[in-house]
Order: sequence, then structure tokens, then C-alpha cells
Amino acid sequence: MFGAEDVRIENVADPRILEPGDAVVAVTRASICGSDLWPYKTMGPSETGRRMGHEAIGVVEAVGPDVGTIRVGDLVAMPFAYSDGTCVFCREGLPTSCVRGGFFGNGAADGAQAEGVRVPQADGTLVVLPRDAGDRLMPSLLTLTDVMGTGHHAAVSAEVGPGKAAAVIGDGAVGLCGVIAAHRLGAEQIILLGRHPDRIALAQEFGATDVVRERGDEAVEHVRELTDGFGVHSVLECVGLDASMETAVTIARPGGAVGRVGVPQSEGMPASLPAFYHNLRVSGGPAPVRAYVDELLPDVLEGIIEPGRVFDRVVGLNEVPDGYRAMNDREAIKVLVEL
Amino acid sequence: MFGAEDVRIENVADPRILEPGDAVVAVTRASICGSDLWPYKTMGPSETGRRMGHEAIGVVEAVGPDVGTIRVGDLVAMPFAYSDGTCVFCREGLPTSCVRGGFFGNGAADGAQAEGVRVPQADGTLVVLPRDAGDRLMPSLLTLTDVMGTGHHAAVSAEVGPGKAAAVIGDGAVGLCGVIAAHRLGAEQIILLGRHPDRIALAQEFGATDVVRERGDEAVEHVRELTDGFGVHSVLECVGLDASMETAVTIARPGGAVGRVGVPQSEGMPASLPAFYHNLRVSGGPAPVRAYVDELLPDVLEGIIEPGRVFDRVVGLNEVPDGYRAMNDREAIKVLVEL
Repeated sequence: MFGAEDVRIENVADPRILEPGDAVVAVTRASICGSDLWPYKTMGPSETGRRMGHEAIGVVEAVGPDVGTIRVGDLVAMPFAYSDGTCVFCREGLPTSCVRGGFFGNGAADGAQAEGVRVPQADGTLVVLPRDAGDRLMPSLLTLTDVMGTGHHAAVSAEVGPGKAAAVIGDGAVGLCGVIAAHRLGAEQIILLGRHPDRIALAQEFGATDVVRERGDEAVEHVRELTDGFGVHSVLECVGLDASMETAVTIARPGGAVGRVGVPQSEGMPASLPAFYHNLRVSGGPAPVRAYVDELLPDVLEGIIEPGRVFDRVVGLNEVPDGYRAMNDREAIKVLVEL
Repeated sequence: MFGAEDVRIENVADPRILEPGDAVVAVTRASICGSDLWPYKTMGPSETGRRMGHEAIGVVEAVGPDVGTIRVGDLVAMPFAYSDGTCVFCREGLPTSCVRGGFFGNGAADGAQAEGVRVPQADGTLVVLPRDAGDRLMPSLLTLTDVMGTGHHAAVSAEVGPGKAAAVIGDGAVGLCGVIAAHRLGAEQIILLGRHPDRIALAQEFGATDVVRERGDEAVEHVRELTDGFGVHSVLECVGLDASMETAVTIARPGGAVGRVGVPQSEGMPASLPAFYHNLRVSGGPAPVRAYVDELLPDVLEGIIEPGRVFDRVVGLNEVPDGYRAMNDREAIKVLVEL
């Protein structure tokens, strides 16, 4: 990405082992993330560009001398953050805060919208997938590298549980995966706040019980009507705008929880004072997707959840620029890149 | 209170039963709260004034026809919020959000810095104390109506637990009770951020293991030095200023929790974006002290905790104006009013 709306496919040097814990992965599938649309909208012109992409599945081509568990030829999934799997935060289930970790596609490590990618901390980062997973499961497996793990994180942070009422703010790919996660964790009522008919239809297939198409005060009023006037126990904030965070706080019932995974637009949090008076818990952040794989992978392999359905467009590597455009124009929910 | 720094003792009509669930309590002990200092500093002139006070112990003088469990003659403690004890939020442990509840001394119900007070929802609100509790325990029992419950709420919200490192921001009465609570809940390290020698000494008797006298960046650096560079698991924010909230977020380690009980100065929360990146949980609010009584009362009665030691000045009703002045000038940590 060389600037806003300026995505190019360039020939660059092949990735190679730089650190003894590295692996090089030949990418077979990657995707475009909603968070990639932020620089797509706002990035200033750059001569060197930024190598994008942080969600991938591929085959291991090379490993460094310190790599122990990952082997050449393994089919692997690559979460959006790399992590050693052994530090204090990894052990506590928060690999996004790994003391030797970092993020793909943001300068620290190159991007995965590419034929190949260098993966630091390969043993801690990569997830070996069953060889016989089959093409049909690939989209859903790919979502475990970010979007499904992120929706799950929103639901976990929002303390979704059996019998509870949950609201999901945002009908993007993360919001849709949030619906899957809320349903999977036993929510009795799942209210989607969104306005795109195709996404709403998918959300309903994923388990949404109610839809609120309004915004702002009208949305708040509608959610209250659906919940005995009290609001929901759990709010999954999957947008990150100030207005959506304000809605999140306002539709949570007293003592409820807001799980936010939409990268916040602002340094400060709006509506923090109402959150205080109602004793809300606000949590969330970059999803520790690597830590969630153990829980979610079996459900994907058994077909219990199908988060891969959020991909509604498949492109080749050369069509990635148009994939950005399509997602930005809301023509596509999420774009899968097949190599 | 008739305006900033204008507290007067006035003769008013005796409290009486207005609703069938009311009780009238003859106050024997009340206190001045840190939160009373906000209007003391900022309130505009008022002709009618505001009847202050929301922490009291007293003897029940009269009960309405619907009152079932509270009897005339009972020695009772009155938490700062009234609540029916039966609504959905009371049952969920959040009486401060009771659908039929409210707060003393803020207009909804009269204040308790008085000879008597009307207590709505008496059955749900009042806590009957053992008749033989004795004068020595009264200050500690009085703290259960607000300040000790609030410190406990900070610790619970900050997820203090055995083996964890906690930091308490603020050496006021709430912060000191936060130290008691963190110690009681098993924190291994308790870092007090404060600068008043007498309060620090008391905090150390209550269980503080370290003291950070600096503020801002220097305080953050010092806390990091004390915690292997990572910060603390639990931050008890007992001030409410933007600067203290920013410190709270900055000294929490990734995946940690901030429990805030200082009424926030601002509508928005500063440092919310760093909180997001480090996956912090931010919670807290008005403490559900009525719900905490069952857990804390036995420890007070057995002398296991002595939160009453935060009272370092005792005044009569006519000296209440000077009590406000003394707390505002930091001459006194907390003032007990004896009638």
C-alpha cells in the first residue's frame, strides 16, 4: 500500500530466514481485513509502501535452526500477531502482548498478502492444520487467524453466556463472527445492530434473533424495547467509532459488560461516565487469536461453526487492489485471496 | 450545604414516614465523605441548600406499614444508596442500580448528617447490627455504609487475588480501605501511590508493601521498577481525576484490570486506547455496598479488619462545617460525626 486507495502488486525479494526461530511460509490463502481499510482510507503517500496482510494459511517452506515443532511441508495457519508461546503473557493467554512478539503487515514483519511470508517465532505463532482438512474448510480455517478469533474475543470480553441477552454492534465480518461466537457461547437473545440486508440475512443464519437497523438514540430505544427496558447483559462492539462505543455503553444494562474489538477511533473513551454509574465492565482489545485456536479449531473441523461464510468474494493476488476497493465500497463483506 | 465552602447546621422538620416502606432512623453516627468535598469545592449558591450525608448508623424510631424485617429499636447501618433488595439488579448484587432505588443526600432522599433521616425501602436498605457491637467497633461498622465497601469494590473490580500485584492510586480514606481490601483478598504486593506521610503510615499498617510518592511519568516508572517492568495485575483507582485514570491505565500490565471507584471527573475516559491495546478490563462505579455487607461485616465484628481507623477526627453535629474544612484542607483523612 503506497497511500490511500493506492494498492499495488510489486515484485519483491523472496522472504528468507532472518532469525533462528523463523519459518518461511508459502501462502496459499490470505485475506483482506477490515482494519486494512483504515490505511486504505487515510494513509499518506509513501515511496517505499507498506506490505499489507496479516491473515494467512500456507505451507512451510523453510525453518530456522531453533524451530522445533514446525516442519517443512506443514500446512499452517498464521495468526495476525506473532508470539513465542512461552513468555509470561503467552502463558497467561495473551499472545498479542508477547514480550518477543509483534504484528504482521505493520512494519515489524512483512505482510501476508503475498506469495510468501517470513514468520518470526514460528513455534509459538503457527498452528499446524490437519493435512486432510480439504478446500471446503479453508475459508473457515482462515478466519481463525483473525476475524473469527476477534469475534470470539468480543463475546468473551462481553461475558456472553447461557441465557444472557447480547447485542452485536456492526454487521461487518467481525460483527458476523461475533454473532457466531455469541450463539456458540449460549446467548439466548442476540441483537444485531446493522443495516445491510445481505449481512443481516447471514447474521440471522448465524444465530441473530433480532435486528436493529436504526442508529443512535433510536437504536438505543429499540434495544431497550427488546430487553424489558433494561438493555443487554453483553455488548460486542465491533466497529470502533465513538458513536458506536457510545451506543454500546448506552444499550448495556447495569452491571453488564462491553467487549470492544473495533480499534477505537479516539484516544479517550466516550460515555465512560455513564459506564461508571452503571458499573459496566469495558474490556477487549487485539484478540489473542493464537490462544483461542485450541477452543475454536475443533468446531471448525467438525463443521459446527462456519465463519468462512463471511468471505463473499475470492480474488487472485493480482486482483487484491480491486478487493480493497470492493470491501471499501461495501460491495464485499470480506475478500479471500487465493494463490 | 448552601454553596461552595458554605455548610450550615439548620433546624428542619423532623423526618417522618412518607411511603409505606420507609423507616425513620435516629442517627447516632454519620460521616463526611470524600465525594461531599466535590460540592464543597464547586457548588453554586443555593437558597434552599442541599441536605448532605449518606453514611450513617442509628436506631430505628419508626417504620411504615409495609416494613417487615426492620423493627423499631433496631441498631442499623444505612448504606449510601437505598434499594429494595428484591428487584432484578438487587438480586444480581447491584443494589446501586435498584429499579426503585436512589441515593441519600442528593435530592432524592434527605441527608444523614442530621439527627434523623428517612430511609426509603427500609427492608432492603438497612442492615441490622448486633446490639452488643460496642462503641469501639462503631467507626469500622460505619465504614461499611460507604468507604470500606467502596475500597472493596475497587479491589473486586480490579480482580485482586492471591499472588497478584496491586496498586492503589490515592491515599484518601477510600484508597486506604482499598489497601485493606487488597490485603484481605490476598494480594502479594500492594503499592500505594500517595504522598501524605500519616496516610502512608496507616496504609503500611493496613498491608501496603511499597509506596510510590511520585506522580505522572515518574510514578509509572517507579511502579514498573517494582514489578519486573510489566506493571501490576490490579489497579485500584480511588481518585477520579483524568491524570490518575491515565496513571491507572499506564501502570496496569497487559491483560490486567483497573477498578475505578473515584467518581470520574470527565465524561470520557483518558488513555482508553492504550487500555485497548493492552487488553485491560476497566470496571467499577458506585459500590454496591449493601451487597458487600454480608462478606465484610463478620471481618469487622471479629476485628480482622479495622477500616474505622481511617476516621482521624470526631466532631459533633455543630462542628460539621469545620469537619468539611478540615477534610478539604487535608487536615483530616475522614471525619466522624457523633450525635
